[in-house]
Order: sequence, then structure tokens, then C-alpha cells
Amino acid sequence: MRYPSRIHLREVSPRDGLQAETTHLSTRDKVAFIDLLSDAGFPQINAVSFVSPKVMPHMADAADVMAAVKKAVHARYPGVSIVPAQSAGATDSMHFRAVGMPVISVFISSRLAGYRPDRTQDDNLASAALAVAEARANGLGVIAVVARAFGCSAEGEVPFDRVLRLARGLHEAGATEVCLGDTSGEGGPAQVARMVGATLDAFPDTPLSLHFHDTRGLGLANVLAAMDAGATRFDSAVGGIGGSPQTRNSTGNISTEDLLHLCEDAGVETGVDLDIVLEAYRFLEEKLAHPLPGRLGKFGRSKRALAS
Amino acid sequence: MRYPSRIHLREVSPRDGLQAETTHLSTRDKVAFIDLLSDAGFPQINAVSFVSPKVMPHMADAADVMAAVKKAVHARYPGVSIVPAQSAGATDSMHFRAVGMPVISVFISSRLAGYRPDRTQDDNLASAALAVAEARANGLGVIAVVARAFGCSAEGEVPFDRVLRLARGLHEAGATEVCLGDTSGEGGPAQVARMVGATLDAFPDTPLSLHFHDTRGLGLANVLAAMDAGATRFDSAVGGIGGSPQTRNSTGNISTEDLLHLCEDAGVETGVDLDIVLEAYRFLEEKLAHPLPGRLGKFGRSKRALAS
Repeated sequence: MRYPSRIHLREVSPRDGLQAETTHLSTRDKVAFIDLLSDAGFPQINAVSFVSPKVMPHMADAADVMAAVKKAVHARYPGVSIVPAQSAGATDSMHFRAVGMPVISVFISSRLAGYRPDRTQDDNLASAALAVAEARANGLGVIAVVARAFGCSAEGEVPFDRVLRLARGLHEAGATEVCLGDTSGEGGPAQVARMVGATLDAFPDTPLSLHFHDTRGLGLANVLAAMDAGATRFDSAVGGIGGSPQTRNSTGNISTEDLLHLCEDAGVETGVDLDIVLEAYRFLEEKLAHPLPGRLGKFGRSKRALAS
Repeated sequence: MRYPSRIHLREVSPRDGLQAETTHLSTRDKVAFIDLLSDAGFPQINAVSFVSPKVMPHMADAADVMAAVKKAVHARYPGVSIVPAQSAGATDSMHFRAVGMPVISVFISSRLAGYRPDRTQDDNLASAALAVAEARANGLGVIAVVARAFGCSAEGEVPFDRVLRLARGLHEAGATEVCLGDTSGEGGPAQVARMVGATLDAFPDTPLSLHFHDTRGLGLANVLAAMDAGATRFDSAVGGIGGSPQTRNSTGNISTEDLLHLCEDAGVETGVDLDIVLEAYRFLEEKLAHPLPGRLGKFGRSKRALAS
């Protein structure tokens, strides 16, 4: 069992977390929450996405949020561009840059049937590749996210060749990071290890990140298997909140605080302050007014960890 | 990452699960539930414990339950003797045997302060060792359980030397299996791997089992780390129910169905039929009339696993 000496966490609760909630946080609360996350030391925070308010009403105040948050020097705030939910292009890239987001995520789903019946997967890949190329031409970094990479809640098994083809398409268009997303928590540790190994082999010079959901309770086991296979970049959400409203069974992301607790046990550095994350957990629990899926916030650090 | 080709599961929901519930199942429902578990193929089922009904009113009908359940030929139904909560001795051993339980668990807690102020840990160890020796003299197998082995919710860090001393005391008295219990879910995967390795080294010819609770969400990550370190025997509970009423933060056991789903992904044989386990999950959910902590029962097998 190999543990990396350090991992790189991207905190996704403000976007992939809050978008799944029925309660809408006020702009002010979002800013306070994101500022807490910046204080905690995350190297990346998915603060907002710029998508149509019709598709994602939670993100209607994205520009206001980005204008108001503290921009911590240690952190980057990647923007999210959902292709083809919006027509991404130069305008978007310039906009992302203008609001202090020098990195964007461009999504492509492994699902064959398009969200729009008039578009094939190849059409989607072409649009996404164009968005990547334009963003790069405008000086932005691009995270290429292959969603539903470990299985699709609608279509079932996803051949790894297809995942690799989509990642390669965006990588060749200039993506600076590849992210495999387990959108509805289909993955298991042995599968994760195989896919991480194969993806690292395919893109040896490009950072690889993993985005797990804990739908079936295997999220942190999958992180362990991914670490053992050489992965060092993970998405997670405070409180384990989250899920895509467009995807069946897309429940919470893996919980940031539970993952940090795992890292403390294994001596894996994160640069993130667990105490401030637990403060963010309590803030979120109060604002959302329901129990959050994450476990550590309910019970506190283990006695084992406290004493060591 | 090493996976064993096969693991041995002990289903503990009828005892360590139901004892934590406010709803008491009728004797008839318990029998129906345990019979379902026998049908599922578990090699061991912790069906009941014989303790004072004052301490554990759920188990008052233990003898009636054991008289009524089908005894599957493939399964054993280890009895549980809590020392020093009851005065275990020859009488108990004979009783366990008479009701078809040729194996018993004898517990010793790593906690220094006794549950009874007049008894030291050495007193408890002496009682437990006596119970082990008497059970062995009466022809029973004995699982020596060191509870709170990974940390204590009351006393904090537990030195591994102490855990090993307790296990050795019961092993020398004749225990036929050693079980390390994480009673309140304190453990993390790196710690688990170290302790599993050291325990296997200490008792190379004696089966080692692990009993994890999922208090802080690391239960299945701990199983993965334990497998990698060479462990092949695990306790789990359908629905992830459970917890000791005597222990702070002792929430649910690891979920049997989530663990089986992990094993399916990794090609680890269990001999247990996941579909029947999911039937047992639904039975339990209906009888207990509240959502169970386990995840797979809510979402079903992943599309990835269905298709492969």
C-alpha cells in the first residue's frame, strides 16, 4: 500500500455541493463560506460555475460571488464551463479571466446519448475541444473532466477506451489537467486502480485528478486505491454534500473532513487545516439546516488521532 | 494493493446490530431474519448473546431464537460471552454447546478503567482467560475479542503493546481466533495495516478477524488496508446497523452489502449471495422503520458491476 507524501485537494462544495441543495445560500453566505475555505488553505476551490441560471439557478450570482471573495494567494479558483450546456468560447474565457479565474473546467460526458438529441458524443467532443483550445489561446489553464468515467447511471458500463478517447481529445486540444469523474458513485477500488494506472500511463506529463461521489459508500476506499496507484489530486466537498441535479443517483461528493482525517492517519500532507474545515462544516450545517452526510463533523477526530 | 482471493465474513447484525436499536424485533422476526442470513451463505452469524436481560433487554429471548432458527450446514453461530459483564464459566460453555453454538466470543476491553470500579484490567484479563480455558475444556472454540483496540472513546490512544498483551493472554488460555475490535470507529487505514501486520506476526497460526465500525466513515477504507496487510476475516452488519450502547460514538458496523459490493469489484470471493443480503436489508428496513446507514441498499449495484 503506497501513500503519497502529499496530495492536492480541490474543494468543490461551493459548486458541486451547493447546487444539489434545495436551500439557496445568500451571496453573502456564499462569500463567507468560500472565504473560510480559502483560510483553510485549499490550493484550489471550485467557487462557482457560469452556466445559465435556467439550468442552475444556484449559480445566478456567480459574478457577484467572485467579485466579493478574498482571493488567497495560495489558492486558485477554477471556473467551470459545462459543454454543451452553454456555448463556451472566447467570450467565456475572457470573462473567467476577468473575474480572477485563470483555470476552467471543461466537461465531457462518457454517456453516448446526448443531453440534446440533436448532438452525438462526437459533436460534444468537438465543442468541448474547441472550448479547451480557445481557453488555452486566451491564456487559461483547462481541467478536462470526463464525467461518468467509472460507469453511467443511465447507460451502464463505460468502456475504458471511450473514457481514454474523450480525455485524449481534450488533452490534444491543450487541456492542462485530466480529471476522471465518478458522477454517480459507480466505481470500486480495483477498477479505480486499473483506470488510474492506465490514465497515468496515457498522460504521463499531465496532472490527473479524481472526482469521486460516495453514492455507494466506496468513496474513501476508492481514494485509497487511487493513491496506491499513484494519484495525488482529489476533489472533495465539506460535509460530503453534493450531486448533479442532472444525474440519477448523484449523491454527495466524498467528504473533505473525512478524507483529511484519513490523511492525518497516513501522514499524507495536504496543507489544509482540518480545524477550519470543521468550522466550515458547522457553518454549512447551520445554513442548510439539515444533517450533512460527512461523518467526522458529527464525532470529531478519533481519539487515536488526537493522541498521536 | 493486495486483495485476498477469498474472505470469511461474520454477519453480526442480529447481535451487534439489533442491540443498538430502540425498536425490539419480535422473536419470530429475529428468526426469520437470521434464517435469511443463513440462506445468504454467511459462514458465521452472530445470532444472539447470552447476557443479563438487565444489561441487554434485546437478547432476553436468545434461547428461544437459537431453538427456532434453521442451522445451516455451512454456517456456525458463535455465541457471545461478555466478560466480566457476566460470570462466564463451565455452565455457560455447556449452555452454549447445548443450544448449538460450538464457538463463543470472549471480550476484553483495552480500556484501563474497568466498567466496575472494583476490577482492574488485570482482573478482567484473568476472568476472561478463565472463561476461555473453561470453554476450551468443554470443547468449544473461542474468539478472543480485544475491544477498543484502535483507540478508546473514553481514554484516547491505546498502546499497541497493551492490545497485544490482552490478545496474548487469551491466546495462551486457548483462544482459537483473535479479533481486533474498533468499537467506536477510531482507526485509520495506515494504523490498521500496521496493527494487522503486527498481530499476524504475533499469532501466525491463529485466524485473525477485524471488527470495524464506520463511525467516521473510514470503515471500508480500513477493510481495504487490512486486506492489503493480509487480513481475510471481517465482521459486518446488514444495513450497517449497530453499536454498543455502552460505548460513546459506537455507531453502525461496516455495512455488509457495501462490503460485498467492494468484493465484487475486486474479485474477492465471499460465498455470500448479495441479492439475498439486499432482501435482508429490506426486511430490516421495514421492521426497524427507519433508513439504515448502509448505502448500496438505497441505490443498488453500480452500473459498472451489473455490466461486468
